Amino acid sequence: MNLIDMIDFPNNLRDLKESELERLVDEVREFVIDSVSSTGGHLASSLGVVELTVALHYVFDTPNDRLVWDVGHQSYPHKILTGRKSGMQSVRKVGGMAGFPTRDESPYDTFGVGHAGTSLSAAVGMALGLRGRDTRVVAVIGDGALSAGMAFEALNHAGSCETLPLTIVLNDNRMSISPAVGGLNDHLESLVRRWRHETKVPVSTLFETLGLDYVGPVDGHDIPTLLAALGDARTRTRPHVIHVVTKKGNGYRPAELDPVAYHGPSPFRPETGLVRQRGGKLTYSQVFGQWLCDSAATDERIFGITPAMSEGSCLTEFERRYPDRYIDVGIAEQHAVTLAAGLAVEGMRPVVAIYSTFLQRGYDQLIHDVALQNLPVLFALDRAGIAGGDGATHLGAFDIAALRCVPNMVIMTPSDEKECYRMLNTGLAWPGPCAVRYPRATTGSEVIERTTETLPLGRGLVCRVSGKQGGERVAFLAFGPLLAVAMEVAKEIDATVVDMRFVKPLDEDLLMTVANEHEVIVTIEEGTVIGGAGAACAERIAAEGWAVRMLRLGLPDEFVQHGERSELLRLSGLGVAGVRQAVLAFTEEVDVLDEV
Amino acid sequence: MNLIDMIDFPNNLRDLKESELERLVDEVREFVIDSVSSTGGHLASSLGVVELTVALHYVFDTPNDRLVWDVGHQSYPHKILTGRKSGMQSVRKVGGMAGFPTRDESPYDTFGVGHAGTSLSAAVGMALGLRGRDTRVVAVIGDGALSAGMAFEALNHAGSCETLPLTIVLNDNRMSISPAVGGLNDHLESLVRRWRHETKVPVSTLFETLGLDYVGPVDGHDIPTLLAALGDARTRTRPHVIHVVTKKGNGYRPAELDPVAYHGPSPFRPETGLVRQRGGKLTYSQVFGQWLCDSAATDERIFGITPAMSEGSCLTEFERRYPDRYIDVGIAEQHAVTLAAGLAVEGMRPVVAIYSTFLQRGYDQLIHDVALQNLPVLFALDRAGIAGGDGATHLGAFDIAALRCVPNMVIMTPSDEKECYRMLNTGLAWPGPCAVRYPRATTGSEVIERTTETLPLGRGLVCRVSGKQGGERVAFLAFGPLLAVAMEVAKEIDATVVDMRFVKPLDEDLLMTVANEHEVIVTIEEGTVIGGAGAACAERIAAEGWAVRMLRLGLPDEFVQHGERSELLRLSGLGVAGVRQAVLAFTEEVDVLDEV
Repeated sequence: MNLIDMIDFPNNLRDLKESELERLVDEVREFVIDSVSSTGGHLASSLGVVELTVALHYVFDTPNDRLVWDVGHQSYPHKILTGRKSGMQSVRKVGGMAGFPTRDESPYDTFGVGHAGTSLSAAVGMALGLRGRDTRVVAVIGDGALSAGMAFEALNHAGSCETLPLTIVLNDNRMSISPAVGGLNDHLESLVRRWRHETKVPVSTLFETLGLDYVGPVDGHDIPTLLAALGDARTRTRPHVIHVVTKKGNGYRPAELDPVAYHGPSPFRPETGLVRQRGGKLTYSQVFGQWLCDSAATDERIFGITPAMSEGSCLTEFERRYPDRYIDVGIAEQHAVTLAAGLAVEGMRPVVAIYSTFLQRGYDQLIHDVALQNLPVLFALDRAGIAGGDGATHLGAFDIAALRCVPNMVIMTPSDEKECYRMLNTGLAWPGPCAVRYPRATTGSEVIERTTETLPLGRGLVCRVSGKQGGERVAFLAFGPLLAVAMEVAKEIDATVVDMRFVKPLDEDLLMTVANEHEVIVTIEEGTVIGGAGAACAERIAAEGWAVRMLRLGLPDEFVQHGERSELLRLSGLGVAGVRQAVLAFTEEVDVLDEV
Repeated sequence: MNLIDMIDFPNNLRDLKESELERLVDEVREFVIDSVSSTGGHLASSLGVVELTVALHYVFDTPNDRLVWDVGHQSYPHKILTGRKSGMQSVRKVGGMAGFPTRDESPYDTFGVGHAGTSLSAAVGMALGLRGRDTRVVAVIGDGALSAGMAFEALNHAGSCETLPLTIVLNDNRMSISPAVGGLNDHLESLVRRWRHETKVPVSTLFETLGLDYVGPVDGHDIPTLLAALGDARTRTRPHVIHVVTKKGNGYRPAELDPVAYHGPSPFRPETGLVRQRGGKLTYSQVFGQWLCDSAATDERIFGITPAMSEGSCLTEFERRYPDRYIDVGIAEQHAVTLAAGLAVEGMRPVVAIYSTFLQRGYDQLIHDVALQNLPVLFALDRAGIAGGDGATHLGAFDIAALRCVPNMVIMTPSDEKECYRMLNTGLAWPGPCAVRYPRATTGSEVIERTTETLPLGRGLVCRVSGKQGGERVAFLAFGPLLAVAMEVAKEIDATVVDMRFVKPLDEDLLMTVANEHEVIVTIEEGTVIGGAGAACAERIAAEGWAVRMLRLGLPDEFVQHGERSELLRLSGLGVAGVRQAVLAFTEEVDVLDEV
């Protein structure tokens, strides 16, 4: 019988002999490879921490001792060892297990994560909240996540606490999703090189300069070493950092060789590994990536900036062709935005490629450094809307509401790849701040042609005109790719459809014309209904003092969970059937009201 | 003749002999004291950098060389030496000179500032944008500002740049507005103590661990030393930090002794100094401060958290009485929010006292760490609305729009001190995330009585009922203290007035009842009209498919500049006359529409 079959929870694990742990590690690693190869998910990070996870649960009294995983890409071994082996079959699927630690899911998930760098702040708070109780807090943070400013803020706080039952495990694999960057990375490398006797290094570490004790480096794949280091940690009263060196993808050769590709693979055959897919429909991200290369070829002012999301944002080709104008700042969204503002004041044209959910980190910088100074920074807002498998932590629902109220902002919502390309052109030509928001989705095309065409600012496009005589005349105002859904329903019920294109400035003339000619306005967007683009239309019509009936469709006032985008859209009532039903129900209701 | 009279711009300054600079320093210092004592403004920070400012403009070829001041509290000597001596008479007044560097104001203000920690990111961006040109970039950042995570993100980036014409001047006065905190502060202190031969210290500095060269410490009040250090800096090709030690308030004894009180004083007589004002009407901040002490006395779960704003947020008494539950995290809003989330998961009741404009820094953390996990964190959102003398950089206009779209949030807008106190009680009792937003303003009372009363969640209050027969029946829906303005206008035109109290959950029943009984709804709030509380009403009415005419009053879609709050409210059309006029114009317009 396998050891892993006997282990449902960490107390089973703690019944094992130390000498059995290596065997368990092998079984857990195999379990991870087997399950992720069939479901897809976060592989390489999880493989890198199998020994560490086993050792942590062996040494610490979880869940009484609190274990906080930063980001959570590496949490699969933890989930497997805390009662969720069967959950691995449904990871990241609708109704299935989340890909990240989540408080709802298990008492062993002490703090929900997804964005990088939160674990230290949470752990300091937890440790302070636990004062006087015999409970320790352990945060595991990667070197990539440590570049996030908030992690530094937490180190600065922890370093000034004389006593705190806090262990910080620095899981140093020299990677975020891409290879890690920055001075901190060089520093950690110098520490590891000293450890390997390859060089001499500075005597004090960054952690020590901030007042934290420092232990390590420690081999993160050697169980006895880990047990000794963590055992020592349990006795410490001052906050401290254990520098654990791991290899991303450890134990599965293809992932070790290409940890970027195996960071979050789709299903694959373990024996043969990933098969590179070529061709197929372009994603919006790919359209952006091509646009950036095309534009940079003729405009030397363009810089491409990414907060550690080169692959996800499709910047690898740009990096290859324009290395001097490619800036990966690491997981540092605040810096990314204000860096762009600095470039812009010197006449450059910075393009910040950033996921909607991560721009939340740079909200103040967007307002205070970019918009207030009215600087030409173009935000290519990826993953705007449903986040897919990443789920609630990565939901890109709030950007329209949050950005729409910011003066000087121009906000565009492309409905297809051609519009996306032209909107990026439009944003680049515009002398102020701009966002082009697009979803995590494929477009309808396999190729896209280069063009320098721009769109007239703040002008929508009528795509279909209702020929209906009598009855309720319905008009859809679409913001973004859900235009296609609107078109399909509109054909069935003979409605007008407008691609509004711009959330801000809103095409008020067109809006009022349409409002004047229709009984019911239906807005549709892949973003929160509260304060979104539909709200902009409602505000405008209210300001005119007009009586127009409006149905606003979009994401609900809740955190949409993980799953396939199309399925989640359907569940949010944004599939064709859902939209049709909502419109019919609304118009019927309106009819009833009219009769009353 | 005084030297200062001969100096309009830095090129005049650069014509002086080195030996004349000390005299100029004295004159500039006197000028600063004279003018700030008559206008009020940021005194102590400015006095601390007189020598540094003179030396910077003497050594560097400004504005060709770029000088970036972090935050800008210390920018008065810079303004005086760059063509704006006369502007000092109008600093922070409507139409007058801004209190912070502003690009609109002068080419010497190369980057607008106001929030802490932005200078390094901006400077790195500018330096990259200037590549190939013979121009240097100098950022001056205080030790307090350096605790901001984004400053660390920028250091991490700069440290990995082999060459960059960037000088970082660390203006170390061991203060933010309050004394600085954290491990970094201890580190800087140890460096200074080594310099003063008081102790031995770690060999490497935090800056060096990140890959930056380090020079110093340097006496920031000794001109020859500064000239030498800055002269050396001009020749360096690698990014580097010059650690300059200054004293906040230097040269004006009362400010040296109490730099906190002299950080941003009201007008005073230089000979006698500040006169402590006692009594008078309570500000909303003071109501909060008292509430926190009152509540903490009986509820041991309460923690009070501030990002370096103890005085401004009125936490000094709480700090004195409950030092174990008072946490000043330094200028680290992200950490403040997630730290609170960590406390909350352990059953504590953290209260984050934060200005509206600074919560923008913690927006992601509020969404991802607090709201998504539905944790009971209470945000006491101060300075929500017009920012007064601080102006556009500190505008608290966006919080309602940005928070309203976040699931699980409860948002309250007290209309007076009693409501404020009860809303804080309500927020504390509520088992999820809450914000109570109040302005930078005095209330109507000099004292407030303790009570444990709470308000029913999501319920507004009818304050006045119109008795009007015929004509347009108008109802005001007020969110916050502008209720008083609505009441005054309502008496004149016989309108109904509702104190809506809650932006979220909105009192939909009351809203629809009022909408049903009135022809015109006027919403009023001290926040952006776009996406604000009035928009919430417009959305709700639109969702019902009702035809209601709505006038939404609030802050315009622009960055409101500096000045007296009441004057800026008036200029924004939110004074009694402005509101009356807007309502009459709207109802007349509506009448005309009806006739058509």
